[in-house]
Amino acid sequence: MGTDIVAQIAVLVNDIETTSQAYADFFGIEKPQWKLTDTLDKTQATYNGEPAEARAKLAFIKFGNITIELIEPDHNPSTWREVLDEKGEGFHHIAFRVDGLKSIVGEMEDRQMPLIQKGEYTGGRYAYMDTFKDLKLIIELLGNDIKP
Amino acid sequence: MGTDIVAQIAVLVNDIETTSQAYADFFGIEKPQWKLTDTLDKTQATYNGEPAEARAKLAFIKFGNITIELIEPDHNPSTWREVLDEKGEGFHHIAFRVDGLKSIVGEMEDRQMPLIQKGEYTGGRYAYMDTFKDLKLIIELLGNDIKP
Repeated sequence: MGTDIVAQIAVLVNDIETTSQAYADFFGIEKPQWKLTDTLDKTQATYNGEPAEARAKLAFIKFGNITIELIEPDHNPSTWREVLDEKGEGFHHIAFRVDGLKSIVGEMEDRQMPLIQKGEYTGGRYAYMDTFKDLKLIIELLGNDIKP
Repeated sequence: MGTDIVAQIAVLVNDIETTSQAYADFFGIEKPQWKLTDTLDKTQATYNGEPAEARAKLAFIKFGNITIELIEPDHNPSTWREVLDEKGEGFHHIAFRVDGLKSIVGEMEDRQMPLIQKGEYTGGRYAYMDTFKDLKLIIELLGNDIKP
């Protein structure tokens, strides 16, 4: 993938306000502000190949070497809602920032690592890849228009 | 806790040989050698307050900013076996290296974050803390005799 830096660890939550406050209290940091993901006309998101109306509240907590992302999804179909309903609150994925996201998605699909969900956000795009069979995790690819 | 560095992301697996090879193939790195945790006379391990005979094969895959730890537990009772049986292969915990492990365990217990499992290893000790209620994760504290 051209990187060995794990950018984010993502955690599904039912109530982002409460869990953000708990992280702030425990780690002695400021409570992060959540933001709502864009609507479908902007995200062009798909989940299992179908247009995905799902939105989520996201909060980012910066640690020294990594960011923990809290995700509170709505009740529309998404990988977030599916995993939250099946496994409960907790871990969802690890994320890597990559160059050439679409070609990496294609290479991974060729390796039997299916695309689960993808979408656009201001300044970039994401793809969740199902690597459960091999790596036992969902991997998110983050492709930003301008490198961080 | 005195640190904001997430040292490890741990992943439960059924077959550490196969999954180690999959990580090596996917990330283009050497396959890590697993090692077996020590026996109870050395680990003094407890799980839910009872002596824990459980052992696990561990493999460590070093990324640029973090280590991914693969864990293949045996069938004795442990947090590893419990989570693997309940949720299947995948994420188990994130780990932080701390100074003063026992006082941090005590402080967390005072905050209703129970100790799940602990043990000794050559050069240090670990404690898994149940922070599901607040942080939605298991947190491992790693206390090494000599700081890395």
